[in-house]
Amino acid sequence: MNDNKELAAQMCVLGVGARDAARALREAPAETKNKALKAAAKAVRESAAAILAANSEDMARDAGLTPALLDRLMLDEKRVEAMAKGVEAVAELPDPVGRVLARWTRPNGLDISRVATPIGVIGIIYESRPNVTADAAALCLKSGNAVILRGGSESARSAAAILCALQAGLKAAGLPAEAIQLVRTTDRAAVGLMLTGLNGTIDLIIPRGGKSLVGRVQNEARVPVLAHLEGICHTYVHAAADPAKARAVVVNAKLRRTGICGATETLLLDAKCPRELAVQILEDLAAKGCEIRGDETIRALFPAAKPASEEDWHTEYLDAILSVKVVDGVEAAIRHIETYGSHHTEAIITEDAAAAERFLSALDSAIVLWNASTQFADGGEFGMGAEIGIGTGKLHARGPVGVEQLTTFKYVVRGSGQVRP
Amino acid sequence: MNDNKELAAQMCVLGVGARDAARALREAPAETKNKALKAAAKAVRESAAAILAANSEDMARDAGLTPALLDRLMLDEKRVEAMAKGVEAVAELPDPVGRVLARWTRPNGLDISRVATPIGVIGIIYESRPNVTADAAALCLKSGNAVILRGGSESARSAAAILCALQAGLKAAGLPAEAIQLVRTTDRAAVGLMLTGLNGTIDLIIPRGGKSLVGRVQNEARVPVLAHLEGICHTYVHAAADPAKARAVVVNAKLRRTGICGATETLLLDAKCPRELAVQILEDLAAKGCEIRGDETIRALFPAAKPASEEDWHTEYLDAILSVKVVDGVEAAIRHIETYGSHHTEAIITEDAAAAERFLSALDSAIVLWNASTQFADGGEFGMGAEIGIGTGKLHARGPVGVEQLTTFKYVVRGSGQVRP
Repeated sequence: MNDNKELAAQMCVLGVGARDAARALREAPAETKNKALKAAAKAVRESAAAILAANSEDMARDAGLTPALLDRLMLDEKRVEAMAKGVEAVAELPDPVGRVLARWTRPNGLDISRVATPIGVIGIIYESRPNVTADAAALCLKSGNAVILRGGSESARSAAAILCALQAGLKAAGLPAEAIQLVRTTDRAAVGLMLTGLNGTIDLIIPRGGKSLVGRVQNEARVPVLAHLEGICHTYVHAAADPAKARAVVVNAKLRRTGICGATETLLLDAKCPRELAVQILEDLAAKGCEIRGDETIRALFPAAKPASEEDWHTEYLDAILSVKVVDGVEAAIRHIETYGSHHTEAIITEDAAAAERFLSALDSAIVLWNASTQFADGGEFGMGAEIGIGTGKLHARGPVGVEQLTTFKYVVRGSGQVRP
Repeated sequence: MNDNKELAAQMCVLGVGARDAARALREAPAETKNKALKAAAKAVRESAAAILAANSEDMARDAGLTPALLDRLMLDEKRVEAMAKGVEAVAELPDPVGRVLARWTRPNGLDISRVATPIGVIGIIYESRPNVTADAAALCLKSGNAVILRGGSESARSAAAILCALQAGLKAAGLPAEAIQLVRTTDRAAVGLMLTGLNGTIDLIIPRGGKSLVGRVQNEARVPVLAHLEGICHTYVHAAADPAKARAVVVNAKLRRTGICGATETLLLDAKCPRELAVQILEDLAAKGCEIRGDETIRALFPAAKPASEEDWHTEYLDAILSVKVVDGVEAAIRHIETYGSHHTEAIITEDAAAAERFLSALDSAIVLWNASTQFADGGEFGMGAEIGIGTGKLHARGPVGVEQLTTFKYVVRGSGQVRP
C-alpha cells in the first residue's frame, strides 16, 4: 500500500513536470528545438563510453533473453553513432508546429486558419531496444511535445545513460529537462498508472512493441492510444501482372527484411496467372530460403510447399515463411484480405489499370500499393523522415507516424468585431 | 444472465450488420448517398403525422422530465420540417470521401496520395433530443459511415418513427437498411456493450450529451471516443479594446444563446481597461438580465455583482450568469484560462495586434478568436455545414466535427515495379 502510494506520487511528479514542460515546448521556436536536438546528438556521441558501459551492464544481467532479444538490446559504437545521426536527422526536418493547414474567409469577414499545434504530453511504452529512447524523444521534441518514456527493464541502464545525453541537449537550448523524462522504476504498476493518464496530464499513449504489450495498452488505457498492431500484409499477383515486376516485387516484399511490419506475410496468386510465373515466383522464394505454406492448388503446383492451415492466413510470421493461396480474380483477393488482413499494407501487381484501381479503392488498409513492394510501408520511404511506427487504427493518424502525425491543430479566427446574428 | 446473453446477442447482430453495411457505404458513390438523404428527407416529411404521434406518446409518458427537457423532447410540424431541411442540407455538402488530401512523388517514382476514407462504424450515444437521430444519421451516411444510434429512453418512440423514414431513404437508394440502426432496448447495459466496441465492429464512439454521459463513455470505452466536453469559454477585454466592439461582442458572446457550449462563461477585464468601459459592459449585461458574479475589484466597480467563488471560475453555467475577473495584462489572462478553461473557445478583444497574436498563439484551445464572439464556435458558422458537436479532445478532430471530420484516410501508392533497396 505504501509502495503503491509512493509510486503514485513519483508518477504524479513526472506527469506534472511533463505538463509544465509541454507548455514551454508548445511555444518554443523551431531553432530552439533544433538546437536542443543537435546538442543532444553531440552529447550522445560524447557519452558513447558511458552509454556502452551502461549497455554492457544491461547485457550482463542475464535476464534469460533470447539471442534475438540480446541483439536488439546490444549497442556498439556504430549503433550509438546511428542514434546520434538519427537525432540530427530529426533536427533537419521542417518544423511541424505552426503549419497553416487550411485558411479561408467567411462571408462575414471572419478569417479562419487551422494551425498545427503540439499534442501535449505523450507517454511512450516500449520494449527492449535502447535506441527507441533517443528516436522517440527526438520525434516528440521536434513536434513540441513533452514525453514520458517507459522502456523495458532489460534496457533500463542503457536508457538512463541515453536520457542523460538527451537532457544535456535540452539544457544547452534552455528547455526544461522535464521535456524528456524516463520512468525509472521497473515496477509494472507504473505502466498501469501511465495508462490512466496520470491525473489528466498525459494526452496520448503510444505503445511500441509486441502484440501482448499493445493489447494490454488498448485494454487498460483511459487516454487515447495510437497503436501499431500487427502487419498481416498481402501481395496479390493479378492475372495481368508483368512477370519480371511480379518476381522482383514478391521476393522483395517477403524477404528484404522479414522482421518488419511491412513484410508480406501472404501471397495471393490469381488463378489466371500463367502457371510458369507462379512456379517461378515460388522457386525464387524457396531458393532464397523462404518456407512456402500453400493451399491445395499451390501444393499441386509446387510440391515442396507445406500445407497451410486456417491459422496461417491469420499469422504475421515476421520470418522467412510465406502463406500462399490461389484466388479467383480481384474480388476474391479483396475478400480474402478483408477477412484475414490487419488493415496495414497490401499490394497488387498488375498491368491492368482497372483491376489495380478496383483493388486500391476497395481495400480499407492504411497503405495500398500498385506495382510496388509492401516493404515501402515506412515513414522514411514516404518522405516523412523518421517515424515512431505505422498506425493501424482509424483515428487521428494511419500509416507512418512521423513528426506531422504527432501534432494536432487549433482554429485561429481573426475578426473585426463580428457578433453572431 | 439469460437476459444479458440475449442482449449481447441482439447487440452483436447490430454490430455485424453495421460492419457489413459500412463495407457497402465505403464504396457508395456520392450520388447514391445523396439520393438516400433526399429520399429520407422526403420520407420524414411524409411521415410527419406518424412522427408527431410517436412524439406525443413520448411526451405523455410523464417520465418526470423538467420543462426544459420536455421542450428538448417536443416535436411539432416546424421542428419536423427543420429536421427534413437539415437532412437535405447535408445532401448538398461536397462529398468528404475520396478527397485527395495530399499527393507527392518520391525520387524513386512512387506516386503517393493521402485519400479521405470513411471511418467505418460509428456509435452515437445521445440524450433526449429526437432530432439528433436524423442529424447524426445524415452526417454519418454522407461521410460513408454506418451508424448505431442509442438515444435516450424518453425519446424512444420518436426516434423509432424517425428511423423508419431514414431507412426508407436508404431503401430508395439501394443502400442496406443496416447503414442506420437504432438500439431499441432501453436497457442501459446496451450502452456498456457499445462501449466495448461490439466485438470489434464499432470504430468510434461519439457521446452527445451532458457531463455525466460523456464521463461514463470516456471511462468505460474500449474504442476511440470523440468527445465534446464542457465549454468554459472566456472573453478577455484587453486594455486596447475598441469600446464599441467590446460591448457588442461581450453581450453577444454571453447572451445570444446561453445554453450552447460556445457561450462565454467568464469575462476577463484587463486592469488597464478604462473604468467607464468596464462599468458600461457590466451594465449592458445586467440590463439584459445577466447575473454578474465578480471578484472584489469588480464588486467595488459594480456593486450589483454577487461575489464569485473559486467554483465559479470552473463553472459552465449554460445560463444568464457570468463570472467576471480583473486580470493584469495578457499573460495573466492566459494563465487564468489555462488554469480554469476547458480548451474549447476563447476570445480576445483588442486593437493591439501584438497582444492579440500573443493570446492566439499561447492558448491551447480548440478555437481562439480575435475581436469576435465565442458564439461563432459552430460548424455552420465555420462554413463546414452541419456538425455533430465541438470536439475538445486533442486527437483526430478538435473544434466543429462535420462530415470531413467523420472521415479518416489511407495512402494510395502507385508504382511501376519498385522494390525497396
